[in-house]
Amino acid sequence: MSQEIPYKIYLNENELPKAWYNVRGDMKEKPAPLLNPATLQPMTAEELGHVFCDELVAQELNNTDCYIPIPEEVRNFYKMYRPSPLVRAYCLEKQLDTPAKIYYKFEGNNTSGSHKLNSAIAQAYYAKKQGLIGVTTETGAGQWGTALSMACSYFDLDCKVFMVKVSYEQKPFRREVMRTYGASVTPSPSETTEIGRKILAEHPGTTGSLGCAISEAVEKATSTPGYRYVLGSVLNQVLLHQSVIGLETKAALDKYGIKPDMIIGCAGGGSNLGGLVSPFIGEMLRGEANYDIVAVEPASCPSLTRGKFAYDFCDTGRVCPLAKMYTLGSGFIPSANHAGGLRYHGMTPILSKLYDDGYMRATSVEQTKVFEAAQQFARVEGILPAPESSHAIRVAIDEALRCKETGEEKTIVFGLTGTGYFDMVAYQKFNDGEMSDFIPTDADLEASFKNLPKVD
Amino acid sequence: MSQEIPYKIYLNENELPKAWYNVRGDMKEKPAPLLNPATLQPMTAEELGHVFCDELVAQELNNTDCYIPIPEEVRNFYKMYRPSPLVRAYCLEKQLDTPAKIYYKFEGNNTSGSHKLNSAIAQAYYAKKQGLIGVTTETGAGQWGTALSMACSYFDLDCKVFMVKVSYEQKPFRREVMRTYGASVTPSPSETTEIGRKILAEHPGTTGSLGCAISEAVEKATSTPGYRYVLGSVLNQVLLHQSVIGLETKAALDKYGIKPDMIIGCAGGGSNLGGLVSPFIGEMLRGEANYDIVAVEPASCPSLTRGKFAYDFCDTGRVCPLAKMYTLGSGFIPSANHAGGLRYHGMTPILSKLYDDGYMRATSVEQTKVFEAAQQFARVEGILPAPESSHAIRVAIDEALRCKETGEEKTIVFGLTGTGYFDMVAYQKFNDGEMSDFIPTDADLEASFKNLPKVD
Repeated sequence: MSQEIPYKIYLNENELPKAWYNVRGDMKEKPAPLLNPATLQPMTAEELGHVFCDELVAQELNNTDCYIPIPEEVRNFYKMYRPSPLVRAYCLEKQLDTPAKIYYKFEGNNTSGSHKLNSAIAQAYYAKKQGLIGVTTETGAGQWGTALSMACSYFDLDCKVFMVKVSYEQKPFRREVMRTYGASVTPSPSETTEIGRKILAEHPGTTGSLGCAISEAVEKATSTPGYRYVLGSVLNQVLLHQSVIGLETKAALDKYGIKPDMIIGCAGGGSNLGGLVSPFIGEMLRGEANYDIVAVEPASCPSLTRGKFAYDFCDTGRVCPLAKMYTLGSGFIPSANHAGGLRYHGMTPILSKLYDDGYMRATSVEQTKVFEAAQQFARVEGILPAPESSHAIRVAIDEALRCKETGEEKTIVFGLTGTGYFDMVAYQKFNDGEMSDFIPTDADLEASFKNLPKVD
Repeated sequence: MSQEIPYKIYLNENELPKAWYNVRGDMKEKPAPLLNPATLQPMTAEELGHVFCDELVAQELNNTDCYIPIPEEVRNFYKMYRPSPLVRAYCLEKQLDTPAKIYYKFEGNNTSGSHKLNSAIAQAYYAKKQGLIGVTTETGAGQWGTALSMACSYFDLDCKVFMVKVSYEQKPFRREVMRTYGASVTPSPSETTEIGRKILAEHPGTTGSLGCAISEAVEKATSTPGYRYVLGSVLNQVLLHQSVIGLETKAALDKYGIKPDMIIGCAGGGSNLGGLVSPFIGEMLRGEANYDIVAVEPASCPSLTRGKFAYDFCDTGRVCPLAKMYTLGSGFIPSANHAGGLRYHGMTPILSKLYDDGYMRATSVEQTKVFEAAQQFARVEGILPAPESSHAIRVAIDEALRCKETGEEKTIVFGLTGTGYFDMVAYQKFNDGEMSDFIPTDADLEASFKNLPKVD
C-alpha cells in the first residue's frame, strides 16, 4: 500500500474545497464571546463593525453554520497556490529508520511563505466587496503583513502596515516584499497616530512592540474613512478561513484511504493549528472518529501548557475586546533570546475551549531542539522550514523515534506552515552555536497573571 | 478549450521524465569541443577526469545519444519537488487584456529557489557513486551554491563552496542557508589556496570575483584527494540535466493539446534556457515542428546580441578550458549597478551553436524595465520572481501587449526559473526609484574582445 502513495499528493483544482468548515457549528458548548472591555458585555455586530468588515463580523459571530461558502473570487486566487501538497516524508522516515508513516501539509509554496495568505485573501475580498478603500494591520516578523500585501494588491486595495520598529529595521527584506506588493509600511511607533505620538513622547527611542503596532493600526482604521482593521490570527474568522488546510488534508488522506493516528500543529495564536485540525476535531465532536491531536508551543511562550483559561486582552495595548482563552497575561513577552516565532501571549478562543474540553493535548519544546529538528528536516526533505513550523517537526520526529522503539506503524500528520527564507538570522545563531533556551519561571508567570482583568 | 485548462498543470510522478534529453544527439553539426588551453587540442576524457567526475565527463563528451537515463536515486530526489507546475497566467492575461495565452514553467518551488537543483542533484549523485568524499564549487549570488549544498546534504557528501567575498558579506542569508545544509562556505579570495594567497598578496582588501572563486574551487578540488569540481551552468552536462524542465513542459502542453508559438527563457550561462528549449529545438532539428525560441539577456551583459562567436576562456582567471561560444571576452564584467543577475560573459557552447545556426533568436532588455515587469507579475500572479527570471517575464508581457494590438491569440510559454527572496536589496533599489540602466559602449566591447585568445 505505502508503495503506491506518491511523494506528494496533489488534489485537483476541482477538489479545492467549495466551503470553509466552521467547527463552532459542531461544538455543543460554544467558545465564550468577545467582551466589550468597557461594559464587559458581549461585543455586538454593530460594535465590531466599526473595526472589522461587515461580512467578517458576521463570520466572527456565526456559531451555528458548519459550512460557509468560499466566494468564487477567493477560490480563483486560491487556485494560484492551492490545493497545497500533502507530502509523504519518505526521506525523513528512511533516515529515522522508523516504521511510522509521516505526512506533512506544506503551506509554504507561495510568496508570503506561509499559510497566512489563506485568510488574508478572504479578508481583502470582503473589504473590497464592502467598497472600502483599504485596510490596516500590524506585523511583527512580517509573514502576515506580506500575505496581506499580496492579497490587497490582487484586489487593488490600499494596505497600511504598521511594522514593529525593530523588525522594520532588522528585517528590511520582509519590508521590501511588502513594498513590492504596493503596501505602505510604517515603523511603529510612528508620528502618524495619536497613540504612536504619545508612546514616542513617553518612551523616546523605543523600538516598539506588537501591542503598540496593533493600537496604531486600529486607530488608523477607525479614524480613516473607508478603512477597516484586519488581523491574521486568534479571531474565529481566521480559523474559519484556515480550515481550507485541514479540509484539503483530509481529502488527500481519504483519497488514498489513509487514516491518521496523530495530527500535530505548531501553536502561536492558533491560526494554522486551528485550520489544520478543526475538520478532524469536527469528526470527533460528531462521534465519527478519534485522533490524537497535538498542539506544540515554545517552552518560552507556553500559553496552553502553563497559561490560565480566563478572559484577557488580545493586545498588550489593551484597546481590543476581551477574549476567553488560555493566556499568559497580555503583558507577557517571551525572552529576547527567543528566535522561534509563536510569541503570542494567548490562544484563539475556539482552540482554548476545545483544549479545555479535552479534544486535544499540548506540549512545549525548547528552541535549540526545534532548530535541530529544522536542520535535520531540511537536509533530507529539501525544504528549509520556518522556525514556527519546526516546532511541529520536532514533535513528529520524536514520535517517529518512539515508534521505532515500540515498533508501532503510526500514521503521523503535521502542518508545515511555511518556509524560513526570512529567518536566516535565527538559523545563523543556531549554526554558530549561539542559540540558547529560556523557560519562564513560575514566579514570572504568576506576576504576569496578576494583570489579568477581573471578569466574573 | 481554454476554460478546461487549470491554473496549474501538474504532471503525476509517474510522468516525471525517465531520461534526460541530449540535444547534441539531434544536431547535425555538433558544438565545438572544449580545448586544452595549453595545447589548443580538444580536451580528452582523461584530462577532464582530473577536474570532473568520470560519469559527468562521459556526459560532457557524449554528442550522440539523444536520451540518457536519469538514475533512480536522482528521480527519487526529483520527486520531492518535481514535476514542477506549468502555470497558466490567467490573472496576468486578464490584467493585460490580451488575447494571448501565457504559460510559465515555475522552477522556484524548492528551497534552493531555482532550477539549479536539477543539475546539482545529478552531479552530487555521480560524485557519490564514484566514491568521492566531496565536491568544490564557486558561487556568486548563491543560487547554485545553495542548490549544491542541498544535493550534497542529501547524498552525505562534503561540499566546499567558495563564495565571492562581497556576496559572502552582503548576502549573509544565502550563506546561512548553505551552512544549514552542512556546506563549508569560504569567502574568496581566501588563504586556503595558493591562488587565493597570491591574489590576496597582490590585491590586499579585494572583495573577490567569480573568476577568482572558480580558480580557488578548481585548485581545491584537484589538490585534495577524493574531491572533484562541479559547475552549475555553461557545461553540456548541465544542459543535459536541465532538459527535465523542457521535457516536463512539453509533456504538460501535450497533455492538454496545447501547441506553443513562442518559448522564452532568460539567458545567463544558458542552463535554464537550454534546459527549457532543447526538447522543442529537438523537434525543429528533426523537422517535426517550428517554434519562435527567444533568449532574453540583460542589456548590460549582452553576450548573444553583441558578443563574438569565438573560442574563449570560461573563467576570468583563465585556468579552465577554452569553449567556443558567444562571448563578451572573459575579462568582461557588467557594470556595478547591474542588479539583475545573468552576469556571465559567455553562453553555453550548445546554445551558441544553435543560435548561430538560426534555431533561436535573442533580445536584450534593460533592468529597470525588467523590475517593472517583475513587480507587475508579482502583484497579479502572486509569485515574487527572481530578477533573472524577470527578463523572460518582460519579453512575455511585451509580446502579449503586441498581441493585444494585433488581435493574435498566440500561445506564449516562458521559464520562471526562480524566486527573488534573496534579491530584496535589488528590489529595494527599484522600490526606492534608485535603479538605473547601463549599456556597455561599442568601445567597451571592442576593448574586451581584444583579449580573446588566438585560436585558429
